[in-house]
Amino acid sequence: MPDTLIKVDLTESPYKNEMIHNRWHPDIPMVAWVKPGSDFIVETYDWTGGFIKNNDSADDVRDIDLSIVHFLSGPIGVEGAEPGDLLVVDLLDVGAKPESLWGFNGFFSKKNGGGFLTDHFPLAQKSIWDISGVYTHSRHVPGVQFAGLIHPGLIGCLPDPKLLETWNKREVDFIATDPARVPPLANPPFAATTHAGKATGAVKDKIAAEGARTVPPREHGGNCDIKDLSRGSKIFFPVYVNGGGLSMGDLHFSQGDGEITFCGAIEMAGWLHIKVDIIKDGMSKYGIKNPIFKPSPITPSYNDYLIFEGISVDEWGKQYYLDVHIAYRQACLNAIEYLTKFGYTKAQAYAILGTAPVQGHISGVVDIPNACATLWLPTDIFDFDVMPSAAGPIKHIKGGVDIPMSPDK
Amino acid sequence: MPDTLIKVDLTESPYKNEMIHNRWHPDIPMVAWVKPGSDFIVETYDWTGGFIKNNDSADDVRDIDLSIVHFLSGPIGVEGAEPGDLLVVDLLDVGAKPESLWGFNGFFSKKNGGGFLTDHFPLAQKSIWDISGVYTHSRHVPGVQFAGLIHPGLIGCLPDPKLLETWNKREVDFIATDPARVPPLANPPFAATTHAGKATGAVKDKIAAEGARTVPPREHGGNCDIKDLSRGSKIFFPVYVNGGGLSMGDLHFSQGDGEITFCGAIEMAGWLHIKVDIIKDGMSKYGIKNPIFKPSPITPSYNDYLIFEGISVDEWGKQYYLDVHIAYRQACLNAIEYLTKFGYTKAQAYAILGTAPVQGHISGVVDIPNACATLWLPTDIFDFDVMPSAAGPIKHIKGGVDIPMSPDK
Amino acid sequence: MPDTLIKVDLTESPYKNEMIHNRWHPDIPMVAWVKPGSDFIVETYDWTGGFIKNNDSADDVRDIDLSIVHFLSGPIGVEGAEPGDLLVVDLLDVGAKPESLWGFNGFFSKKNGGGFLTDHFPLAQKSIWDISGVYTHSRHVPGVQFAGLIHPGLIGCLPDPKLLETWNKREVDFIATDPARVPPLANPPFAATTHAGKATGAVKDKIAAEGARTVPPREHGGNCDIKDLSRGSKIFFPVYVNGGGLSMGDLHFSQGDGEITFCGAIEMAGWLHIKVDIIKDGMSKYGIKNPIFKPSPITPSYNDYLIFEGISVDEWGKQYYLDVHIAYRQACLNAIEYLTKFGYTKAQAYAILGTAPVQGHISGVVDIPNACATLWLPTDIFDFDVMPSAAGPIKHIKGGVDIPMSPDK
Amino acid sequence: MPDTLIKVDLTESPYKNEMIHNRWHPDIPMVAWVKPGSDFIVETYDWTGGFIKNNDSADDVRDIDLSIVHFLSGPIGVEGAEPGDLLVVDLLDVGAKPESLWGFNGFFSKKNGGGFLTDHFPLAQKSIWDISGVYTHSRHVPGVQFAGLIHPGLIGCLPDPKLLETWNKREVDFIATDPARVPPLANPPFAATTHAGKATGAVKDKIAAEGARTVPPREHGGNCDIKDLSRGSKIFFPVYVNGGGLSMGDLHFSQGDGEITFCGAIEMAGWLHIKVDIIKDGMSKYGIKNPIFKPSPITPSYNDYLIFEGISVDEWGKQYYLDVHIAYRQACLNAIEYLTKFGYTKAQAYAILGTAPVQGHISGVVDIPNACATLWLPTDIFDFDVMPSAAGPIKHIKGGVDIPMSPDK
Repeated sequence: MPDTLIKVDLTESPYKNEMIHNRWHPDIPMVAWVKPGSDFIVETYDWTGGFIKNNDSADDVRDIDLSIVHFLSGPIGVEGAEPGDLLVVDLLDVGAKPESLWGFNGFFSKKNGGGFLTDHFPLAQKSIWDISGVYTHSRHVPGVQFAGLIHPGLIGCLPDPKLLETWNKREVDFIATDPARVPPLANPPFAATTHAGKATGAVKDKIAAEGARTVPPREHGGNCDIKDLSRGSKIFFPVYVNGGGLSMGDLHFSQGDGEITFCGAIEMAGWLHIKVDIIKDGMSKYGIKNPIFKPSPITPSYNDYLIFEGISVDEWGKQYYLDVHIAYRQACLNAIEYLTKFGYTKAQAYAILGTAPVQGHISGVVDIPNACATLWLPTDIFDFDVMPSAAGPIKHIKGGVDIPMSPDK
Repeated sequence: MPDTLIKVDLTESPYKNEMIHNRWHPDIPMVAWVKPGSDFIVETYDWTGGFIKNNDSADDVRDIDLSIVHFLSGPIGVEGAEPGDLLVVDLLDVGAKPESLWGFNGFFSKKNGGGFLTDHFPLAQKSIWDISGVYTHSRHVPGVQFAGLIHPGLIGCLPDPKLLETWNKREVDFIATDPARVPPLANPPFAATTHAGKATGAVKDKIAAEGARTVPPREHGGNCDIKDLSRGSKIFFPVYVNGGGLSMGDLHFSQGDGEITFCGAIEMAGWLHIKVDIIKDGMSKYGIKNPIFKPSPITPSYNDYLIFEGISVDEWGKQYYLDVHIAYRQACLNAIEYLTKFGYTKAQAYAILGTAPVQGHISGVVDIPNACATLWLPTDIFDFDVMPSAAGPIKHIKGGVDIPMSPDK
Repeated sequence: MPDTLIKVDLTESPYKNEMIHNRWHPDIPMVAWVKPGSDFIVETYDWTGGFIKNNDSADDVRDIDLSIVHFLSGPIGVEGAEPGDLLVVDLLDVGAKPESLWGFNGFFSKKNGGGFLTDHFPLAQKSIWDISGVYTHSRHVPGVQFAGLIHPGLIGCLPDPKLLETWNKREVDFIATDPARVPPLANPPFAATTHAGKATGAVKDKIAAEGARTVPPREHGGNCDIKDLSRGSKIFFPVYVNGGGLSMGDLHFSQGDGEITFCGAIEMAGWLHIKVDIIKDGMSKYGIKNPIFKPSPITPSYNDYLIFEGISVDEWGKQYYLDVHIAYRQACLNAIEYLTKFGYTKAQAYAILGTAPVQGHISGVVDIPNACATLWLPTDIFDFDVMPSAAGPIKHIKGGVDIPMSPDK
Repeated sequence: MPDTLIKVDLTESPYKNEMIHNRWHPDIPMVAWVKPGSDFIVETYDWTGGFIKNNDSADDVRDIDLSIVHFLSGPIGVEGAEPGDLLVVDLLDVGAKPESLWGFNGFFSKKNGGGFLTDHFPLAQKSIWDISGVYTHSRHVPGVQFAGLIHPGLIGCLPDPKLLETWNKREVDFIATDPARVPPLANPPFAATTHAGKATGAVKDKIAAEGARTVPPREHGGNCDIKDLSRGSKIFFPVYVNGGGLSMGDLHFSQGDGEITFCGAIEMAGWLHIKVDIIKDGMSKYGIKNPIFKPSPITPSYNDYLIFEGISVDEWGKQYYLDVHIAYRQACLNAIEYLTKFGYTKAQAYAILGTAPVQGHISGVVDIPNACATLWLPTDIFDFDVMPSAAGPIKHIKGGVDIPMSPDK
């Protein structure tokens, strides 16, 4: 049985746990040191540190202060890791905490972060997904069940001061281009809710003042929300500080490409069993700027798909130039519209796209002016046949159940 | 043996073939009518109508007049198809013409259309790929071979006048926002090189004046360049005019997600064996705006990947807002840099991403301000091991061969 | 376009074609010599040389003289190949002859060879399967369609005299243990119907007298009927005579593991596009006795299965010792019984198991006294849902169509 | 968190645990009753009840009294299940016990049960496999690692008295045909080591006298050792007694088709999370005699294989009639010989075939007199390239490590 390097108590605030932090900063103290080649367990909170509850109200999704996220476990130092190395991380296994076999998926209010389709779903909504072994299903979304492609949404090494400065300048300058935007363009450092791990005093203050927020994926990886970083995969991370400083969290039981619901995938507390190793000077040897990885051999093999196309003309007819974001939004809206014909509400359909192992492909990105994106919906996750037929769709979902919504206050 | 509905003679200009056209317009006369349930063969030119040759010079890629593309076979009328129906197309098989077992991949000069990475590859380059049964390889790109995911880059039904007007207005207005841009934002109707099929006289002139260019994918499908519309797949197309008016062309022996090289995939002349059927009133029954499809059960099963991440900060450090296009470009540039460590030139690496069955996923699109895209490189297409190791990369590709380039005149 | 090394005219008897033979013997003259590294086309008859017709009578299956099979194309000499080498064969592509887009599946009368379930299907029956691009379906077996896993049932190199003698002695001795058995235990050399290719005079007589029959798979490969030797695969054959002497035929559009119907898979005339190469002294280097191979990356991905178990107690309750043959027969009988609940006749169900890409696994072979075999039935080949449910099966197949039968004369 | 219905303490003899039994008999008392639709956890011993230890000696494999196996957890009653129903079992998850993250693979001495290749490996040998998350590797078999296809080797419902009588008569009669055979043809009831669960007194004595041994798979399923009954699969079991009486055990972390090493797969103690339901009268509705099942969507996707052929002529040249057992043995021996060329000992190669997710296919079973079986070796489980090449094999495995052997006493 491997050692559990970091433990979390889900009944306790993550702010009380010194092995947790919620900002990126080179001065966050290592919580433990391990040798290359060793493997160990890391427990994690869900990304909100337990704020979102297993109930039938979306009030928590509406009311959450997003400056508190993400609660990460770490940083872990690996002996001998130096800037320029690659930290090789084997995700030997990932799972839910036995005392917490459920996860949540939500849509934030547009006023509180929104999401990919926030103009269509401007209010807070939440669905709860029960975890039954390798499978999940939801009391709020009938007729669908699937095996989890379990993965950490967020994992990466600490930045060095120079990289941190690059991030902060880049994003603060960007916010300045439209500071009043709702939702905002990006999130600047924010001291009040900073959790600096074991740091105290002036170091803690420095981290609070400068620490990069954890929401965006960046050069080091971080909050990539890549559904394919699943258990069994092997990741190669750039190292910027001595020891690497590996942190992780934001576990997802399952997610579709894009994590389009933002709040988010099927979010859960849990644990990772990982092994670490080093490739000395790997960044220059392999020309690595961002992490690279090899996916797992044991991902769910849903390989019968119904595929929806979208182009970079938005839902109000406006033309964009090779904009894959817009094109993917159209593909998603097309899939949602399609699923309503089988009886789902639009919110339920949106939740399916956010949680199930749907694929989002950048199909064409050169045919001016239209990008083409495709949304791949696995058909085997449904209890019924979702393919088109000459007879037309059957309303298998009879209604009477929907995803709880909480209007803005 | 099914009937060959449309034949093409590769030794002859496509302008001489009345069953070919290169614009979208409701008045292009049907070249044939078929019954629902019938299957037949359609031959096609390569998208340039034979302009690009099997040789070792990129002059043709540099010099091509892109107002001539794409040469499509059709339109074919399906008896009983009416606006609002879905035209169900089974791609029973797709292949190269036996007398033309090769294809080309190129990068356009930035002055002549460019491509996804035109700032990095601003000059015309061309590689030739030989087709050996189900496999392809190139004398210009050593060390790589793969099975073809053969598909039409372009297929769809004729627009009705209203849809055509929407397209033209949308795109002409868009061009007007930056009319001097090189490459242009979009392409307006262009009479001089119009091929209106069987149309003559005033009808031909109308088509030439109004006909939408074939480059962008649009609501009807068209030039989606979706690599997964491969032989064995089943597609559901919106119908806008009586008979549907199905046209197709731009065959690809293989392509990566995004068709990032623009000129293009492995482009070839060939044939399709298709079957057509109708779902009456299918557009409203299923809420269909863009085509949807079910992929083939016989696609190449390269499922061991090395995956590269990219975020929406461009290669010069500029921040973009959840821009998947930028993020995918970074993932592609990361992969190219990586492959150079094994001995490839950047142009060879770029050609591999444009031709091999790489996947491009929209991995995260909500974590402000950074989108995250992933480029999935199948490792089994290489003759050697491309995974990272502690020993560092081995230069398997010894150099001495590159992709022919033709400087701008 | 590669050269066609061997042509066949389906309107002509294979006995008139000197590039065909139907026995294995070292003295069969090479029909052509090729260089290592070269690729070429080989056309083939169906295994019966055109005896079985595309009609609705099983008389031909009942009446065929099986001493004429298999009509093979070859032998082809590869320059430099010597005994002890491995002949590397890339099956670049395999297809049906354009003028013959159909195949047959049959059950022999027990008196004329029988088959795996001959005690249950003792009379001649035949179904015809139309080839529509990558797919096939049958007018005699409604409700099922699948993509072909196209392959040669029979391919291998000529034996040397010593190996031939081993075969003949082994099999003749075996026949002698039960010479009156119907069907026989094996087939001895038989001069009357021998086709010795280009051989004439005394050589021809020798071949006729000694030539091993082509039915069984043997050390050299031969009639392995392995469905996975499909287009795109790479095979390593032992070489016994100078030049190797590669022959092939018995093309199948599709087949289930075991080829349980014996007559056979979906049998067709067609062509192979192959490439040959040599590994010098490969037999001893790699310890090779029988061929080995690497399957194709483009096989049909039917991966949703309903799996039937069988154990080595036969259908009359008799116990066998770890007998996989008996166990697989039970699994097949179980699957047939199951399919009748959806409306199929037993003969139709048997034909599906013989033609579709079903898998047969040796699941357990040590738990005395019972072997356990499993029959994997791909569910996506059916037009309807074949999974069990609480509601019980629905008779989707309405009857009125069956597989033609011809009683023994 | 689902309830744990049956707990096992690995430090205690299974004979002390009333929820365990090691014979099949209708009178074994149910240890618990559950409702249809409920899910729960069942813990299990390894099949030997802890007799085999994690050490470097094969003495325990040599000395084990096989009359004690298999220690099964159950039987569990499902309310409302009646003879003729189908018991639907969802294997929601299966895992190792956290305190026991290892498994064993062994070859029995020919005197003590032997195995598939007992004539080649007549002495006791044992390898230990460590479980690291989803992966396993062995200190006794270098150079190989793979993801587990975790499954119960043994699961099924209690027989009714008539079925039990059929089994006992069938097998005792069979033993009588060669009572002195070593290893024996089958195993008769054996009272001395019977564990009858909660039964006491006369009932216990009856069970001991009549209880069928658990080694063979039979009509009810039982010890099928089907590697594909893995977590995520759904199984439909025949019900013979009121409540069904579902028992299970013999967990395997991974196994190849055939479980050819007999002792066995990678054998481990562990737990199953299962859900049960009922299809009333399902046996006749669906014509079910043996269990059927739907495999999991999350099995390891090792899909690059090197495939070995074998025919039904044994290793001493003797001819058998369409004998798949013999043919598979040849394919296995061929694979073992091949792997020795890369440096493995024959015992290591045999252990790989017994533990890794190799497939064994019944490829041809009608081409008299030779059956053809194929052994599919996944190439991605090796740290090195195992494909043949012109250069010949490289001895990647340097020797110095082998599988411990214990000579017969």
